[in-house]
Amino acid sequence: MFFKVKTSEEVFQILKDFHPTEDEVLSIDKALYRILNKDIIAPEDLPGFPRSSMDGYAVQARDTFGATESLPVLLEVVGEVLMGQPSNVSVRPGQAVRISTGGMLPQGADGVVMLEYCHSLDERNIEVGRAVSPLENVLRFDDDYKAGTVVLRSHHSIRSQDVGILAGLGITEISVFKQPRVAIISTGDEVVPIDQRPLPGQIRDINSYTLNAFCLQQRAEPIMLGLCRDDFKKLRQLVENGLHIADTVWISGGSSVGTRDMTLKVFESFDKMELLVHGISISPGKPTIIARIGQKAVFGLPGHVASAMVVAEVFLSPFLARLSGKKDMTKEALFEVDAELSRNLESASGRDDYVRVRLIEKQERLIAEPIFGKSGLISTLVEAHGLIKIDRNTEGLYQGQHVKVMVFDRV
Amino acid sequence: MFFKVKTSEEVFQILKDFHPTEDEVLSIDKALYRILNKDIIAPEDLPGFPRSSMDGYAVQARDTFGATESLPVLLEVVGEVLMGQPSNVSVRPGQAVRISTGGMLPQGADGVVMLEYCHSLDERNIEVGRAVSPLENVLRFDDDYKAGTVVLRSHHSIRSQDVGILAGLGITEISVFKQPRVAIISTGDEVVPIDQRPLPGQIRDINSYTLNAFCLQQRAEPIMLGLCRDDFKKLRQLVENGLHIADTVWISGGSSVGTRDMTLKVFESFDKMELLVHGISISPGKPTIIARIGQKAVFGLPGHVASAMVVAEVFLSPFLARLSGKKDMTKEALFEVDAELSRNLESASGRDDYVRVRLIEKQERLIAEPIFGKSGLISTLVEAHGLIKIDRNTEGLYQGQHVKVMVFDRV
Repeated sequence: MFFKVKTSEEVFQILKDFHPTEDEVLSIDKALYRILNKDIIAPEDLPGFPRSSMDGYAVQARDTFGATESLPVLLEVVGEVLMGQPSNVSVRPGQAVRISTGGMLPQGADGVVMLEYCHSLDERNIEVGRAVSPLENVLRFDDDYKAGTVVLRSHHSIRSQDVGILAGLGITEISVFKQPRVAIISTGDEVVPIDQRPLPGQIRDINSYTLNAFCLQQRAEPIMLGLCRDDFKKLRQLVENGLHIADTVWISGGSSVGTRDMTLKVFESFDKMELLVHGISISPGKPTIIARIGQKAVFGLPGHVASAMVVAEVFLSPFLARLSGKKDMTKEALFEVDAELSRNLESASGRDDYVRVRLIEKQERLIAEPIFGKSGLISTLVEAHGLIKIDRNTEGLYQGQHVKVMVFDRV
Repeated sequence: MFFKVKTSEEVFQILKDFHPTEDEVLSIDKALYRILNKDIIAPEDLPGFPRSSMDGYAVQARDTFGATESLPVLLEVVGEVLMGQPSNVSVRPGQAVRISTGGMLPQGADGVVMLEYCHSLDERNIEVGRAVSPLENVLRFDDDYKAGTVVLRSHHSIRSQDVGILAGLGITEISVFKQPRVAIISTGDEVVPIDQRPLPGQIRDINSYTLNAFCLQQRAEPIMLGLCRDDFKKLRQLVENGLHIADTVWISGGSSVGTRDMTLKVFESFDKMELLVHGISISPGKPTIIARIGQKAVFGLPGHVASAMVVAEVFLSPFLARLSGKKDMTKEALFEVDAELSRNLESASGRDDYVRVRLIEKQERLIAEPIFGKSGLISTLVEAHGLIKIDRNTEGLYQGQHVKVMVFDRV
């Protein structure tokens, strides 16, 4: 069968067709980074009562109009607001009530004079040396949120302050999308478990562990289904199992052409299989297979771990974001840093090249230094901080040129 | 007692004196983002044997010298390398052995001709239409790592590919710094548990939950010790408890001056207490107290959650990084994005102003739009994507000026 190699853009478009399928309800102290599946509406006003935002005296603002240091206004102190309690006195013209930051504004008051502008004459009287306008130093009862307004939108990823506002509104549980589950299968007759000493010709299962950690990094739930020799029946069984227990199945590990062919044959053996991608015009990472089996995406990743990681960073990261319920957002820009390229870089046209780079800080500037090395080597990835893309429509990049670096990790 | 307000730089310097104290050993599949407490040395060569990085024929490179499409070289095919096994034939002059990507190079061979440059004449003979140099398309036995070399350095934070290389080298467990434990205490007579309906004058415990999530975000282990009224004995008891079970104690919640004074008095009641910071020249966040009790840092954070969050982002984030074992790194630059300011911003001199901003993408440019609002409001934080700093030595920033935005969250 003839199958045209797809461009990155075509692959991104194809991956947009996959969505989260399940929800769950979580306590807010477990909700960090989870994705809302509906809008959060304020059930009540916040703070719910007028509060002072300063330490000082609650007053009727108009009493202070015209007050200056040289011409202060005299006010009678008629009480004090205790924290956490409504005041039992109300403020009438010519009166003031002592109040702390966060205290509830007493009846009658509509402004707070900061302590530093007040001068105590005796226990009952103060001089106010500055005017306040109505509502100055006061948070109104609905200044944070008015009951019924949208506080957080569906598809939003929960941050610390979002947990805070939920707590503040008394929302102790929220409904979120379930984290995507990823079944990971390693193939290849040459691959052995990592706690085993490889014989000549064998290598340990680097890919399963790399992809497992990659999933955790993307806040997906990896399920390592283990190693599979190049055996059609056994591999098909594992993929079937993966489709039952996970939202997507990823096969990688063996780098031989035989292993890749086997993966394709196994995908094709399923009913309701649609081959979506057979080869992507990128380097490294070209021999990538993507199919849809039922509603789920299955991936045959390149065997070289460095190539698999590039495919993971470039395609599986937005794929998992989508499966997690995240919307396309400004976010992408946030994962990239701007750096200056340390040298000229040529590129074969007709494909997008992803070059591993090291980031070096030089006099406040960030320099991206390409790491060369055979694509089968994982050391090139370990030494790199991120990737830069050389678009297939350019012939290369120049020394000193500003480039966007997709950083592997920011934590 | 007179205590001078400290600058940000002084506070950063003070926080550099705190270090991680404990180690633990972890299985590598649980090691993502953990910090190494010693160098990782390669215990063996990787890949450990010479491998082909292409599908093709293993040959003696010199046999192919001068070969071209029009003047191919004839070679005898004497066998095939099976994946995961050493070849049982060796390659002699004039011979070739079929090999797949990742296969073990047979004895005698020193290069691999890619399949696409070979033409099968019959079962035993091929024509090779291109020359290969020695080691072309071959990964040597120690190309990734040579036994004894440093693979990952102490204080490095483990990423996906680092888990991969550990797996590849058969290192199934590593020694890392323990995650810092943070005891969180909420104070203030006006603060009530989040599942309780606040009476007039009361607010729910936003701060504990915000700081709890903030710790999780920084990969620290939060321990919520709960609410404490403004009661010296009870608060002292909680701080003592916190010092026993955690590496640092954070008090926040109440915004009144009484609560703040109580926190200071409690800190001062401990033996071996050293007051390090009493006020920082930043806005918001000025009323921050930092002390050392024994070897541990204790913090009295501003009561306003927005102020507490600014202090957390600016100071507690690098503090926790240090307590986690991370080194000062290029990293800082990676947490910031470059954006254009949407309008002029004035600033009072004499303090560093942290302004909350919204990030908006406009025609490939990232615009930072300041969010104004009273500092007691959490909504300003919820609507913001990050903070920009107006240095105390400048009087403000201009519209269109490029600014660094500290983004709250990048996940």
